[in-house]
Amino acid sequence: MSGKVKLAEHTWPEVKMLLERDPVAVIPVGAFEQHGHHLPLMVDAHLAGSVCEEAAERACEDGTAIVVTPTVWTGYSPHHMDFPGSVTLDDETFSAVVGQVARSLAHHGFRRIAMINGHGGNMNLLKNLTQTLFYEHGIRAAAASYWDFALAELADWRESDKGGIMHACEMETALMLATRPDLVDMDKASDHLLDRSAYFGADLLSGGAVASAASFRELSPTGVIGAPSFATQERGEALFQAMVARLAAFFADFATWPRNDQEETRT
Amino acid sequence: MSGKVKLAEHTWPEVKMLLERDPVAVIPVGAFEQHGHHLPLMVDAHLAGSVCEEAAERACEDGTAIVVTPTVWTGYSPHHMDFPGSVTLDDETFSAVVGQVARSLAHHGFRRIAMINGHGGNMNLLKNLTQTLFYEHGIRAAAASYWDFALAELADWRESDKGGIMHACEMETALMLATRPDLVDMDKASDHLLDRSAYFGADLLSGGAVASAASFRELSPTGVIGAPSFATQERGEALFQAMVARLAAFFADFATWPRNDQEETRT
Amino acid sequence: MSGKVKLAEHTWPEVKMLLERDPVAVIPVGAFEQHGHHLPLMVDAHLAGSVCEEAAERACEDGTAIVVTPTVWTGYSPHHMDFPGSVTLDDETFSAVVGQVARSLAHHGFRRIAMINGHGGNMNLLKNLTQTLFYEHGIRAAAASYWDFALAELADWRESDKGGIMHACEMETALMLATRPDLVDMDKASDHLLDRSAYFGADLLSGGAVASAASFRELSPTGVIGAPSFATQERGEALFQAMVARLAAFFADFATWPRNDQEETRT
Amino acid sequence: MSGKVKLAEHTWPEVKMLLERDPVAVIPVGAFEQHGHHLPLMVDAHLAGSVCEEAAERACEDGTAIVVTPTVWTGYSPHHMDFPGSVTLDDETFSAVVGQVARSLAHHGFRRIAMINGHGGNMNLLKNLTQTLFYEHGIRAAAASYWDFALAELADWRESDKGGIMHACEMETALMLATRPDLVDMDKASDHLLDRSAYFGADLLSGGAVASAASFRELSPTGVIGAPSFATQERGEALFQAMVARLAAFFADFATWPRNDQEETRT
Amino acid sequence: MSGKVKLAEHTWPEVKMLLERDPVAVIPVGAFEQHGHHLPLMVDAHLAGSVCEEAAERACEDGTAIVVTPTVWTGYSPHHMDFPGSVTLDDETFSAVVGQVARSLAHHGFRRIAMINGHGGNMNLLKNLTQTLFYEHGIRAAAASYWDFALAELADWRESDKGGIMHACEMETALMLATRPDLVDMDKASDHLLDRSAYFGADLLSGGAVASAASFRELSPTGVIGAPSFATQERGEALFQAMVARLAAFFADFATWPRNDQEETRT
Amino acid sequence: MSGKVKLAEHTWPEVKMLLERDPVAVIPVGAFEQHGHHLPLMVDAHLAGSVCEEAAERACEDGTAIVVTPTVWTGYSPHHMDFPGSVTLDDETFSAVVGQVARSLAHHGFRRIAMINGHGGNMNLLKNLTQTLFYEHGIRAAAASYWDFALAELADWRESDKGGIMHACEMETALMLATRPDLVDMDKASDHLLDRSAYFGADLLSGGAVASAASFRELSPTGVIGAPSFATQERGEALFQAMVARLAAFFADFATWPRNDQEETRT
Repeated sequence: MSGKVKLAEHTWPEVKMLLERDPVAVIPVGAFEQHGHHLPLMVDAHLAGSVCEEAAERACEDGTAIVVTPTVWTGYSPHHMDFPGSVTLDDETFSAVVGQVARSLAHHGFRRIAMINGHGGNMNLLKNLTQTLFYEHGIRAAAASYWDFALAELADWRESDKGGIMHACEMETALMLATRPDLVDMDKASDHLLDRSAYFGADLLSGGAVASAASFRELSPTGVIGAPSFATQERGEALFQAMVARLAAFFADFATWPRNDQEETRT
Repeated sequence: MSGKVKLAEHTWPEVKMLLERDPVAVIPVGAFEQHGHHLPLMVDAHLAGSVCEEAAERACEDGTAIVVTPTVWTGYSPHHMDFPGSVTLDDETFSAVVGQVARSLAHHGFRRIAMINGHGGNMNLLKNLTQTLFYEHGIRAAAASYWDFALAELADWRESDKGGIMHACEMETALMLATRPDLVDMDKASDHLLDRSAYFGADLLSGGAVASAASFRELSPTGVIGAPSFATQERGEALFQAMVARLAAFFADFATWPRNDQEETRT
Repeated sequence: MSGKVKLAEHTWPEVKMLLERDPVAVIPVGAFEQHGHHLPLMVDAHLAGSVCEEAAERACEDGTAIVVTPTVWTGYSPHHMDFPGSVTLDDETFSAVVGQVARSLAHHGFRRIAMINGHGGNMNLLKNLTQTLFYEHGIRAAAASYWDFALAELADWRESDKGGIMHACEMETALMLATRPDLVDMDKASDHLLDRSAYFGADLLSGGAVASAASFRELSPTGVIGAPSFATQERGEALFQAMVARLAAFFADFATWPRNDQEETRT
Repeated sequence: MSGKVKLAEHTWPEVKMLLERDPVAVIPVGAFEQHGHHLPLMVDAHLAGSVCEEAAERACEDGTAIVVTPTVWTGYSPHHMDFPGSVTLDDETFSAVVGQVARSLAHHGFRRIAMINGHGGNMNLLKNLTQTLFYEHGIRAAAASYWDFALAELADWRESDKGGIMHACEMETALMLATRPDLVDMDKASDHLLDRSAYFGADLLSGGAVASAASFRELSPTGVIGAPSFATQERGEALFQAMVARLAAFFADFATWPRNDQEETRT
Repeated sequence: MSGKVKLAEHTWPEVKMLLERDPVAVIPVGAFEQHGHHLPLMVDAHLAGSVCEEAAERACEDGTAIVVTPTVWTGYSPHHMDFPGSVTLDDETFSAVVGQVARSLAHHGFRRIAMINGHGGNMNLLKNLTQTLFYEHGIRAAAASYWDFALAELADWRESDKGGIMHACEMETALMLATRPDLVDMDKASDHLLDRSAYFGADLLSGGAVASAASFRELSPTGVIGAPSFATQERGEALFQAMVARLAAFFADFATWPRNDQEETRT
Repeated sequence: MSGKVKLAEHTWPEVKMLLERDPVAVIPVGAFEQHGHHLPLMVDAHLAGSVCEEAAERACEDGTAIVVTPTVWTGYSPHHMDFPGSVTLDDETFSAVVGQVARSLAHHGFRRIAMINGHGGNMNLLKNLTQTLFYEHGIRAAAASYWDFALAELADWRESDKGGIMHACEMETALMLATRPDLVDMDKASDHLLDRSAYFGADLLSGGAVASAASFRELSPTGVIGAPSFATQERGEALFQAMVARLAAFFADFATWPRNDQEETRT
């Protein structure tokens, strides 16, 4: 069964056997929202799923018992709803969907559940979800965005100035060029950097003190925030490999964490 | 753009243009649950998505403006939770997810939304969803299972006796052989027919008077209800084509229904 | 106490004694909504209650331990709210009310709970309720509309063409003439048949492939869908007796079903 | 149409005509719970409905436009659930049911809605409901228990000492003897008075400073709190007439209150 | 530790030690709403907290183990929202906050929880809360307004006629003069008495038969209902002392009530 | 009115006047939870409130129109519930309380609402709240913890190594020594540093890649995480002044932000 990491392709007796190995279960979580004129709606779901599957494949090859569920493609994206095609759940429903996927897995005995995110707007909710899963259901899950494991690599890799990595940006465009070049139209990629109070964050790598909310319509006419023009397919491939490597390392580590023995799963 | 029916691959300006053609939007709805020893967990999501994309492709070729969203793979499957790997949402969350995808589409101006289902257990909820979408949000959507359009064809096609088409059965196994033969293990397919009071339904094509609930564990040791042994790849392909044809015909018809002009979308 | 089937007329010590006989508990579920110019708002609640009480009386006489609760008269009727006097619950509240009546009965030890419906618009919700009662509370209940047990008899009985039996129709008018002739004004009864796409259902006895929603205002100026003009008191009495007989047979059968021993009632 | 006060017996065109007279709409609210060894489960629902219908009949005869809905028989009775046969809704569902009946009526144009209660345990919730109906939906409704209008008459009428009027007591037993003597078994009526801290209420007519909660099982082995032995049919009839007279007077007064013109019904 | 009654000033090991003495826990509950031109927004929260802390201090000196939590200052005040500065929770949130404070205390072992209220509009909800805490969570709590223990004293003390004690009135103004005279501007105090149907209550000490709802804007231009002009600091001090004495007596009594041994706390 | 920044001490006419100056409204948000053996339960609520009031006082003196509500002392603290005395709301109730305070203020016309937090565990929820307030209610609010404005100052100030600033730590102990020295018992202060995977955060000033959840019981026997032994009153006063200065600067800046003119408040 080596190399077979998609849970969707398992039969139930195969899952039953797998559970004896105390496997890691990965839930990729994306979103479905505008990414400017040059990228399709599927970016966040696609990248979360691709990085996870590739990293799981690698961890699996190195001996880690691991499966990846299909990607939850319905994210929390109210700030993109002024752009046609964007889909959003409300915050409670988003948390309920991801949480109930996790609870279903825990019900069957999975005890190493990682929710790996591909959309910044989901992250407060996923962090909170690790809390409600634990305090209300006794399920210990981990949550992170796929780039969180490679922030140092990302800082080294980037060529744009501060502000270049936010949305439909240098990073996402490069990763799309690496994985689905047929869906990227670089001719339509135009940079757009924010000019806001220093109290707000202006780049994925430099946050601000204050949280507030705005529609992307107010911030960018194209829907882009960042510098996609810096992206190339070659650099995208390098970044993709770096991110996969870091995530695979986390999966392997996660598989060895002390198991929560007093865990009482109240699914 | 002819033939490009996946909404996920559109940019937002492309969606904006498409909306001028009053397009049909299709939301495939599946589930993620055990399908016996011979079929993988992904059957319902995969079949709903495949039939929809193929039928939309055909309708598109014939001039219908149409897009298909990614498949909502998280269904309502509490009756399968005794079998490892099955994932379920509770009823409220399931309805919220599908409903909010529909409401997001309506928010952008889609007025012809079809929710096409691949899992029997979802259907009460989807029918009810057409009501709450309309009475609470002013959105007129349609719901059906992909097989509902081809019941006559299915009756002609079948070789099994009554009871042979229910779950991981003659129909689903044949359709999987047609579309993902690599994921079907016919050696492990064994038939299992229900022997229950006539008050209950015993086959997709012959319901009973009374609704009740049971865990599949009580009904079938393997998780199969029906006669997968009758399935062959060739017959699967024939059935798949018949179903696609009927669904494509519905999409084309749906695109011509009188538009609900007094519709006030309260997303 | 033979013949005393109304739970409302029992004292609690009488209920305690009755429970030793593993009785059937019937919850009639109706609605409160317009029924054209010739029938009162109470039709659905009245008919559900009358058929249930009469059938329970008969089953009781034949030795079945059985009680009937008062009728839940508050149904799910948003599609009738354009007609004065109609009352509706939202879907969640409707399910909560019927479900909590059932849970109260289960709490006391009733293990054979039948929810017998008199309003088509309730049926998706009642079917779903059998699922949530079972999967969330461990309570196995049965749900059906009173006519579901007599579809064959109804097909034989009818004189109208397809489309004649839907709402305030040949069937309901006849049953009201049989049971409350003082509340029927045949002078004001006028037929109205739907002329819709074949994808939709057009008669209680012939459904369509697609579920959608509409206000009755759009479908019928009088609120009638069907052919009440075919109804007579004599034919109504015959139909009423046939339906009572079929429902009484179900109650007697239901009382003998294997009892769910592993049932853990989590009211 | 004089004397016809049951809304259930109206057709929708009759309701439409009635609404031109700015009628009072009465919603009787009861409960379904144990009432000792000598009274049936239906007491609260029956008495609320009977007093309301009789009082409305009288007000109608005196020229008040008025209708009475069927009784909401499902009350808030968790404190009775240790006694077989009792049915309870949870607090949210109870408020939702009564509130949605009121909102349905307001939707059609009823502006004088009175919720008349027959079960002490409902009253906090009904009072709160008048607030949420007004502050959340702009609907001004009135709520009271049927005895609230006749507290002075009740004090004169009683023969029992303090503690004699609480539950299945002198008052309720007498009113049942007046209206459904066939359902009262005086041989099984036994008195039971509370002996509690003065901080608690001990009688319908003398409350205490502190609210707390207890199961009736802790308070009374029979389920009775009060002195049913004082009840006679003759005295019951006198009390019933007094209560009907006071309630009819309220209905007539209610019909003349200044209409809330700025009311914006947000049903 | 004598005299130290503020729970907020305890460390957790101190609370642990205190719990061995089976202490009373008091939760003061206020509101934040307009109180006319002469009193600040904080009146209800301030008075509930002050009376509770002073009474607890006194009970503590007399040997009762007791602590007081910080005051829940967010009340249910939709009827004051037409006056700037008023803050309200909706009814569900109000009940959830107070209920979860109580459940947190019960979780640690507190078994004598008193919710002492300072705002009339909260009281239906607090009474209901004692029910849901008990029936849903097995927690027996007590609820009362601080004046409920001193109704006789209040009747003796008052100088205003009926109608003088309602809101920002003789009582509240006097108590504020006693405790925060710096925040009272008697020059701006003007009396306003209601002139309403006898069916409604017109004074804290004389209720009416019927509950209904209204905005204070409709009832009083200044926000005052009552006769603040009768208030003096001296009389306020006398009333404050009387109320503290009565509440301290209740706390001492409450500490001796039989402990609910079968209590199963399901926090 | 200069210097009067407590909203609680305002009358409603004073608030009405203030609103003409487009004032900042500050909602301090705390928690009520164990802080080791040496600090009381009130730390988070007290510090959030103190820093806010002092900073608002200073901003007010410099001409900024500003008020501070009472502190919401009920936080999200499930991870502390193993330590007696801790109080927690669930996540939905916490968000509802703070959100409804903000919505009440917005209802009256406040358009510059800052939620200033004193408990790390609240922050995901407050960030999410800025989103739901904006996307669901059209209210643009800002959220931050009081230390977020002074991270640079804090880094300079600290003497402990990484791990010394987390909970009941060098920072909180110093700030308590500065503001309520009577409630600090330095004899009982003992340091406790985490020794966890680098994937987790180990200090307020250095986060980790992964979010997960644990009870403080698992992490620290005393409830302390950090190095309180480094705290002194003198250093605490310096830090307090620095934090107040930075927050006052934010308030002054916040008062000048472009006002959201298209804001449609849907409270």
